[in-house]
This record gives sequence, C-alpha cells and structure tokens, in this order.
Amino acid sequence: MRIGMVGLGRMGANMVRRLIKGGHACVAYDRSREAVQSVVTDGAIGAHSLAELVRALTPPRAVWIMVPAALVDSVIAELQPLLASGDILIDGGNSHYQDDIRRAQELRPAGLHYVDAGTSGGVLGLEQGYCLMIGAEPAVFSTLEPIFATLSPGGRRAESMAGKSAARAMAEMGYLHCGPNGAGHFVKMVHNGIEYGLMAAYAEGLNVLQHADAGLRQEEADAETSPLSNPRLFQYRLDIGAISEVWRHGSIISSRLLDLTAEALAADPALGRFGGRVSDSGEGRWTVQAAVEVGVPAHVLSAALYSRFESRGRSEFADKLLSAMRLGFGGHIEKKL
Amino acid sequence: MRIGMVGLGRMGANMVRRLIKGGHACVAYDRSREAVQSVVTDGAIGAHSLAELVRALTPPRAVWIMVPAALVDSVIAELQPLLASGDILIDGGNSHYQDDIRRAQELRPAGLHYVDAGTSGGVLGLEQGYCLMIGAEPAVFSTLEPIFATLSPGGRRAESMAGKSAARAMAEMGYLHCGPNGAGHFVKMVHNGIEYGLMAAYAEGLNVLQHADAGLRQEEADAETSPLSNPRLFQYRLDIGAISEVWRHGSIISSRLLDLTAEALAADPALGRFGGRVSDSGEGRWTVQAAVEVGVPAHVLSAALYSRFESRGRSEFADKLLSAMRLGFGGHIEKKL
Amino acid sequence: MRIGMVGLGRMGANMVRRLIKGGHACVAYDRSREAVQSVVTDGAIGAHSLAELVRALTPPRAVWIMVPAALVDSVIAELQPLLASGDILIDGGNSHYQDDIRRAQELRPAGLHYVDAGTSGGVLGLEQGYCLMIGAEPAVFSTLEPIFATLSPGGRRAESMAGKSAARAMAEMGYLHCGPNGAGHFVKMVHNGIEYGLMAAYAEGLNVLQHADAGLRQEEADAETSPLSNPRLFQYRLDIGAISEVWRHGSIISSRLLDLTAEALAADPALGRFGGRVSDSGEGRWTVQAAVEVGVPAHVLSAALYSRFESRGRSEFADKLLSAMRLGFGGHIEKKL
Amino acid sequence: MRIGMVGLGRMGANMVRRLIKGGHACVAYDRSREAVQSVVTDGAIGAHSLAELVRALTPPRAVWIMVPAALVDSVIAELQPLLASGDILIDGGNSHYQDDIRRAQELRPAGLHYVDAGTSGGVLGLEQGYCLMIGAEPAVFSTLEPIFATLSPGGRRAESMAGKSAARAMAEMGYLHCGPNGAGHFVKMVHNGIEYGLMAAYAEGLNVLQHADAGLRQEEADAETSPLSNPRLFQYRLDIGAISEVWRHGSIISSRLLDLTAEALAADPALGRFGGRVSDSGEGRWTVQAAVEVGVPAHVLSAALYSRFESRGRSEFADKLLSAMRLGFGGHIEKKL
Repeated sequence: MRIGMVGLGRMGANMVRRLIKGGHACVAYDRSREAVQSVVTDGAIGAHSLAELVRALTPPRAVWIMVPAALVDSVIAELQPLLASGDILIDGGNSHYQDDIRRAQELRPAGLHYVDAGTSGGVLGLEQGYCLMIGAEPAVFSTLEPIFATLSPGGRRAESMAGKSAARAMAEMGYLHCGPNGAGHFVKMVHNGIEYGLMAAYAEGLNVLQHADAGLRQEEADAETSPLSNPRLFQYRLDIGAISEVWRHGSIISSRLLDLTAEALAADPALGRFGGRVSDSGEGRWTVQAAVEVGVPAHVLSAALYSRFESRGRSEFADKLLSAMRLGFGGHIEKKL
Repeated sequence: MRIGMVGLGRMGANMVRRLIKGGHACVAYDRSREAVQSVVTDGAIGAHSLAELVRALTPPRAVWIMVPAALVDSVIAELQPLLASGDILIDGGNSHYQDDIRRAQELRPAGLHYVDAGTSGGVLGLEQGYCLMIGAEPAVFSTLEPIFATLSPGGRRAESMAGKSAARAMAEMGYLHCGPNGAGHFVKMVHNGIEYGLMAAYAEGLNVLQHADAGLRQEEADAETSPLSNPRLFQYRLDIGAISEVWRHGSIISSRLLDLTAEALAADPALGRFGGRVSDSGEGRWTVQAAVEVGVPAHVLSAALYSRFESRGRSEFADKLLSAMRLGFGGHIEKKL
Repeated sequence: MRIGMVGLGRMGANMVRRLIKGGHACVAYDRSREAVQSVVTDGAIGAHSLAELVRALTPPRAVWIMVPAALVDSVIAELQPLLASGDILIDGGNSHYQDDIRRAQELRPAGLHYVDAGTSGGVLGLEQGYCLMIGAEPAVFSTLEPIFATLSPGGRRAESMAGKSAARAMAEMGYLHCGPNGAGHFVKMVHNGIEYGLMAAYAEGLNVLQHADAGLRQEEADAETSPLSNPRLFQYRLDIGAISEVWRHGSIISSRLLDLTAEALAADPALGRFGGRVSDSGEGRWTVQAAVEVGVPAHVLSAALYSRFESRGRSEFADKLLSAMRLGFGGHIEKKL
Repeated sequence: MRIGMVGLGRMGANMVRRLIKGGHACVAYDRSREAVQSVVTDGAIGAHSLAELVRALTPPRAVWIMVPAALVDSVIAELQPLLASGDILIDGGNSHYQDDIRRAQELRPAGLHYVDAGTSGGVLGLEQGYCLMIGAEPAVFSTLEPIFATLSPGGRRAESMAGKSAARAMAEMGYLHCGPNGAGHFVKMVHNGIEYGLMAAYAEGLNVLQHADAGLRQEEADAETSPLSNPRLFQYRLDIGAISEVWRHGSIISSRLLDLTAEALAADPALGRFGGRVSDSGEGRWTVQAAVEVGVPAHVLSAALYSRFESRGRSEFADKLLSAMRLGFGGHIEKKL
C-alpha cells in the first residue's frame, strides 16, 4: 500500500527503505532536504512540505510520524487541517501512552484515526526488522497490517493456523496488536523499563567482576575505610571482555544486550570514551510511575532508573546530608578524594 | 582423551554423551546403577565404585565431579587416597569459589591439582554445548583444554588468530580460562547473580502489564486503599503471552530467558501450576555478599534476591511490625484478606 | 480568632478542642450529629449544615476542612456558593499537592483563598500539638498564623529574634509557611515518604534479629534450599521487644517511630493480631512519583513502598514467572509450602 | 567496683569520666600519655602500660577495651599473658560478632571470660549515657552489671518489678543482656544497619524537596534529557533547614537523627563543607551479609549501603557499561558534563 512518512532520522529513513523493499510506496518528508533526497534515491516519493506529502496520498490516507516525542503534538496540529475524515495518523516514536489516549480523543471528532506503534529495533532494524507493539481500533489495525508485517522481522503477514491464536501468530512475526489506543506505547514503555533492568543487571555484575582484584590493591587503613575481611579471597584480575564474550555461547544469560556489551568491551576493555553519565529517556520513568499507580512492586526497574540518576550526580545533596549526620553523631570527618 | 565422570544426573550424563560424541573416552560412575547403565549404552565405560573408576584411568588421571555442591567435599575425601601425584580433580558443579581456594590448597601437598569449572547450559547443553568458566593452573588448563573444547558450544579448540587474544578466541567457542583456582566459580557466581537480576526485570515488567487493567477492577473505596488517580488510564487487558513472544523478534530485550518466558506463557498464560514460591540456590546470595565485600553497589542483584525471599514469606515479621506502627501512630486498622 | 471546622473525625475534633483551649472560637460541623455534640460539650459552636457553619462566621471567614482526601472537592463545591470574596478555605487533610494547585486556581476568580496545611501528629496531637506544613499566599498565611500557632506543639506564635530567620522561628514552634499553594502538602507528602522509609528500616532490621536463630532450626536439606554457611554463627534467640526498648535510651536510632515499635512489642512480642498486610495511603506513592519526575534517586523510599505492595500479594504473578523460568532452564520444581 | 579501661579516645575517656562520677574506680591506659593524664585529672588511676594497668586491678579483674576494631586482637594478645583465670575482657568497640565468638572460644581454655558490649551514644554519651547491648555468660554479666548500669542513660541498676521482665527493666535503663557471646555486637550491628536506612530515608526525602524547583530551572532540551511532564508543578524553592526543624516538633518522623540533620542545616543550608563522599564503617555491610545469610529481605538497608558506595564513585565502571550499551543499540552519544 501507499503510506506517508514524516521524519527521516535514523529510524524513519530506514523504515522507509524497508517498506519500499517490501513493495510499498512511500511518500517521505523531513525538514532536511538532504534527508528527503537520500530516501528518494532509494525509491521514495519525496515531499517538501506536509501539504505536499498529504497531496501525494489518496484517501483514506495513512501518515506515519517518526519524530522526537516532544514534537509529535505540533506535527499533528500542522497535519490535522490537511487531512480528511477516515485518514489515519500513526505515531511510531516514544510518546507517553497517556498522550496517545488524549490525542485519539482529540482527533475523533474530525473522523481521524490515531495509532500508536511502539517500535524497537534500533540501528539494526533495516536489515533485521522492527519489533512493533501497536495500539489501535481493530479495523484501523487491519488496514495497516500489511505495513506492520513488512516492517516486522518476519517480514510477512501472519497466517492463522490451527491451535494458534491470531495474536500469537502475529507475535511470531514480530508485530502485535496489543489493544486500543495507548496499548502499543504502554507495552513499549514497559519494554524499555525492562531494558533498563536488564542493562543494570549486566552492569552491576560485571562491576563486581571488575573489582575481584580488591585484595591486591593497597587499601588505605583508616577509621573511615572498611577493610576486606580476607584480601586473599579477592585476588582475581579478570578479563571482563572475554567473560562477556564467553557468556554469549551456551549460557542462560545470553541476550542481545549481552552481544552489545561484549562488542563494546572488545573494542575497548576500559570503555575509555565513556564518562559514565547515563541518560534516561522517559519510558523508564513512566514504567516506574505506572507500577506505583497500579500498586505492583518494581524494585529492580526503579533501582536501574535511580542508578542512572545517581550517575549524573543527582544524589549529591543527599550524600552531603549523610556526611553531615555522620559528623554530627560520631565526629566522623568526611574523607577527601 | 580419557576422563572420569563422577555423578550422572541430568548434567553429568549429558556431558558424558557430548564428550563421547566428541571422540573422548569416558569412565562414568554414579551411585545409581541405572544411571551408569544408561551412559554405558551410549558408549561410556561404566564403573561401579570410585575405586573402579580410578583404576580405569591412566595417570595423570582427570576426574570430573558433577554432584550437588554439598557433596563435593565428601567425594573428594573418598577419591583422594585413590589418586596419585599429578592427577587432576575438576569440580563442575556450583561450589562457592572460596571452597575452591581451600580445596586446591588442601590437595596441593599430595601433588593433586584442582580445577573449578563453572558450567551453564542447563537441559539444552547436550545439543548446544555448555558455557564453561574455568579456574585452574595454566598447565592444568592446557591439559584439559580438549575436554573443555568438546563440551563447549563451539565444540572445538580455539585457534589463535592475528589480532585476537587467546582469551577472546576461547571465549568465542564458549569456554574460558578465567584465572587461578576459584576464578571459574567466581565468574559463574556472578553469572548467576546477573541471571537473578535479568529474571526479575522481566518478571516485574510483565507484572506491570498484567495489572494494566487496574482501572477496570472495582477497587474497594476505604481509607486503607489508595485509589487510582485516573482509572481510565489503566484499562488494558493485555495478552502477556503474545507480548513476551513479540519481544523475541527484533526487540532489544530478546534473550534466552525471554525465550523461556514466552514458552511458559504459551503453555499456560495463567501459570497455574506455580504458586510463586521462588527458591534461590546460593550463587545469588554469594554475589551480593561479594559485592558488599569489595564495596560496589548491587541494587538490582540484591533486589532480585530479596524478592525471592519475600516470595517465600520471609518478610512476614517485618510486615507485621509495619502494621503495628501504623496502628500506633494513626489508629489504622489492618485490612483483612 | 473565629474559625469553622468541617469534619470532626479523630483529627478534626481534637483540633477543635486544642483551638478552644487556646482561646479561639470554633464553629464545628460534621455529618454526624454525635460528633458535633461531642465538641459542643467542649465549647465549640455547633453547626448542622455547611450553610449554618458559614452563617456563624463573619467575613472574611476561614473554614478548615478536615475530611478524607477523596471528599475534599465535593465539600469545596458545596461550600463555594455560600462564601464570599476574601474568605479562606484550608485543607488540612492529605490531598495531593497538585490538587491544591488546581483548587487554588479554580477558587481565585471568586476571590476565595485556598490554603493547604499538611498536618502530622496523629492521635497524640491534642496534647502535644500538631506539626503543620503550610502552603498559602503570604497575606493569607499571616491572617491565619494565630490558628497555626495554637495548633502547633509550641502553642504560641513565633517571635522574631536576632540572628534567626522568621522561618526558623516558626519551625521551632512546629508550624511553617513552606511556600505558595501546594507547598504545604508537597512537604507533607515527602514527610510521609520519609516515614515509609524509616518504618521499613526498623522493620527490616528487627526481622534480621528475629531470624538470628536460623542456625538452631532444622533446615530442609534439598537442592532448592540454600544452607547456612555456618549454622553455629546464627544461634541467638533474641528478645526483640527488649531490644527495641533499649534502643530508645541513649541510642542514635531513637525516634518516635521506635517508641511506637517498642510499645507494640511490649504489648505482644509476636504481634499476633496482625497479619502483615500493610496498606499505603497515597503520599508514599506520590513521593516516589515526584522523585522520578524531578530525577532524583529514591532507592529507600521506593523499596519501602514496594515492600508494602508485596505484603499484599501484589508480586504474585511476577513470582510465578520466576518459578516458570527456573523450571524452563534448570528443571527446578517449585517447592510446595 | 574497680575496672580497667584500655583506650582513651573520645568514647573511652568519657566512659571513664561517667564511671568515676558514678562512684566506680577506673584504672585507665592509653598509648598517649596526654590522654591518660587527662582522665587522671578527672579522678582516674593512670597506667602507663598494660602490665601496670593489670597490676592496679585485683582478681577477678575486669578490663574494658575501647580501641578501633582492627586493634582488638592485638590488645587481647598482649593482655592475655598478664591475666589469670576468672578475669574478664570486655570489648566495647565495633567488632564483628563472629570475632567475638572466636575470641570467647580462644580465651576459654585459660579461664578468661569475654564480653561484647555494643555501645551507642556518640559524643553525647558522657552526659546522656550510653545505650549498651551486651553479649556475655549470665554470671559474668551479673558481675559487671553495676558498670553497665552506671554507663547507661538510666544511670542505675534496673529493679525487678511485678509484671515486667528483667530484660524489659534493664532495657528501660538503657542496657541489655542480649544473649551469649556475640549477641551484643550482633544487635549493635543491626542497630547500625538500621541507622544507615534511617539516614538514607531522610537524605532521599530532603533531596526531593531540594529539587522541588525543577520546573524553574532552564533544562536543556535535547534527545538525552527527559523533560518534566509539567514544569508548573515543580516551582517550589523550599527552605530545607526550616523544614527539617519543623518536623522535630510534633511530627511522627521526629528522631535523634533528624535533630542532627536540622542542626547541620541550621549551621549551613548548603552543607558546603561536605563533598558527599560517604564512608561506611563495617556494621552496615555485615548487616546486609547477615540478612542474606539467614534469607530475609533487606531492600532498604542494602540500598542505603549501596548509595554510600555510589557516593564514592564505586559504580563508575557499571555506568560506563550502560553508556556503552546505549551507544550500541540506539546510537545514543553520552552527554558531556
């Protein structure tokens, strides 16, 4: 089918390419003329304004928006007057699912349909396909299914089979209609929350391995330092890179994130190009807030998030308070760096 | 080469089979005659006592011990008088690495060598191979490398290549000489600690998804229940099984543990055969204790461990204390089930 | 001065009594005639409807609302048409501070002032006074300061002194103008978040003491149970009640919450009347959500909250998932109760 | 009674003074002659060697050791040959309780008794007394009770009363015979573990308050920064010092640690003299390890400990790993400071 794509960054441009390879026609727009030109070379129909993009589609139109979450509302505001009842807007970025619910509601009076398509896959998506978590009205989902199928790793539409639900069949291709508006981004949100937890588990464990040589280091002997109970038990200088690699082969903790970890450590075991200031991009926060809202424990997901905050110095005042209390009750002088 | 195997449980028996397929000769012993018979059928040389096993090997002998951690010391005590200087004992189970250090030291005066081989792979190891993390003296490791290579997923010895360290080459096969005695089980310990963290990340996230319908449930309205701030935002009935399946395809959180999760949910989405009392088997505890000992944060690994404790009712007294305090300061009466 | 009180539950009725003792005139209303009668006996002017309450006050009127958070909006809706420009509404309950901001905004066009007064003190407040955290416009705060001063533990208005800020002087009495609308409940919210953390710290520690006899218990010896490394190190049967009492005397961890803990354990060391299902009442959740929103770590406050969720069985599905994964990769059969 | 004191640091010297005031005779020794002289001025009998100290006591002697935990074993080694069967050694420092068990066992063949006396009170102990948690054989405890009673806040021996256990009566004075050797330091260990948790709860909460102005700060708008969902909800500039003060008056979270916090913030609201590198001194670590050993959850106590590790940069490698993974899967470039 024919679809419009707004936003040709790393993700959007590659999705256009995968759709074209899959036999779809793509009308592509980006503020950057170069970005448009690049996908035109690969077979897309270029548009140099949203109006031009809309004109190049025939009703009922489908427009996929692939821009930073903060810009989605303004893109929709600009698109809405150009569209007609029956047209479909798809947000493929990382919107908060509560914004999806609001937008679907706002667009409904004009007869416009809204779809939230949580998308995972990153830089490898062009070749390997994208994992798609979709929130939409059932009929709208059906209309767009050929698009989702092509973008997915399976690359083709799920076939119904005896003894297998439609949901399961889709899931095996790598796309899933999760539920009504917001459901796609809700599932994507939790997906990313889990990602934070997984990443932290590897990071913490490898950090323990990195310090397995604690008994070999000359530790300061003063009242403010806890000595090792038995230094002879911590005298391993481990090759963290090789360890992350060996775990990729036959171990129960092998995963795509471990692949990336091993790759990074192979390139530079000291990770010297990184300072350790870890950003977070919204979904991890929203997952914790959702867990709190529905009242389920999220120890691991929260801890993973907070450690990122800490890596950016956000506990400084709290830490100073602790030092101040220690001085107050025990006369402990804070150690200098 | 020829090797002895003591302990023919699920793991030991399959390792014997994989070794035989790989061209090695195995002398196999287990307290159960049936277990011995089973591997004899597959080509092993059966032994009906440790003495018989030792006699069937030629010095320098190598004996792989694959029994529960609690039994290793007694097996070694029984084997030691039967062995001679130069012989090698390999512990392939889940011993605490500090026991490895002690045992290596105890065996040294008799000229016996000790090797700790942390083994991951579980029930799929026979076909896919085992990920091996090894602590040993360098020469002893070299002697045994053909065994490790065959057991590993690569199934063959690593070849040294330009631009690649020996460690990296081994790791790519799925076995690694991590360091001196204890290093293998140290790495395996942390491996399992990470596993706890990964499992908890998936479990917590899927639990949030499971409760995405909180707004649809008639919640009790009383002073002891926090109401949802906006029930309309939590009205998704999600297909957790299909979601865990879709993530396996193209998503950044795909992993072997996710494969198992999807499989379990496909078999029974309600997981009705489980009560939710989660055991822990040592390594998770030791990882946390090691992190504390060397002074590195392990928020996620600890939380994963504690949640298992909690699943077994180990916070009951703490929870009663909280209810008692709440009654004390606010007159809050604990809600009944 | 003269003030109206709406809501004569445990808190409201005692606040009326404290105000009357302090020389103020109180017009008191509650849906329960008995509740009204009870404070009339103690000197209050009874009102049997909100209209009657308003009529008994002279403009500019001040009405203190002391009802469950869920009812505040409806009480305000009923009161608003009865009031006139310049009148003041005080919410002394546990509202979300974001509701305060909204309400203040909604009431402003009518010339009505809104005050949020976070109140701590519980059942001892009548005698010992209430700790008050107040959000209000400065002039409105000044008008009401005599009321706050009387309710506070200090029982009198703070005097400005050389070398001491006005804020500090107030704080020493036990009331504080924290900032504009919402600031009072924001501070109260975090106050309760801290309370959750403090309570959990005591509960966890005492639970460790409760299990200091682990080495004396006959533990099951099976593959699904981690044995103690050295049972002789955990053979203490401790008197938890006496320990919580001794800490109240001269120890750095003495506190009002510890007082309550010791009292509860003195009454029944086994806490047999409690089942350990710990409720949470909103502020703990909002504190975590606020921490996430502003991006600061809240490991302890979150963990305290999640443990309450867990105490109410909210991690059941997560725990079942863990058992299912363990069965999948290692053939571990879940232990029965 | 007459007692020897070895170690006249801040704690030891003040304990000597409190004992003398209470009518006991103290023989005091320290490596520093000045320290000895100082307590001699206050009525102590000075000793300039351990031998001199022992000679100044009459059998059965009692010697209280008040030195850093790392030095206790060497002091005992030096004292032991000078002592005779029936003499008593008291360790009043912060030894690991497992060292107590070992020492008691080592001293038993010589007929020497060992007592562990966990001591809390800090710099205020001289005036307010010390909270004492004691592990000892019952008869030995009885012999020393007059000493413990004088040191305790109650300052006198507990009297048995109808309806009150002996333990409870002692506890109300501020000293407690917790159990056999090690029990005193076990209880003190957990006491300090709780202290870590309490401190962290205040620090985290106050840190949230400190960032309540997040909506007023010009946040960077880039793909690596999560924006506030609604900046107007976080526009409070709060007086953290005044808030910590107001909570001391009538609030449920008032405590001795809060007193210290308010004091520190009154002196300098910015805590400018502190860098936020928080030490930990052993007991917090041992508490976590004990919780893990006996299998009870310690989310809060562990988090408090780990945050101290993090404050000292101990998660740096873990954080770098997270940044490396983020670059790997999403092309995220780490933000510079």
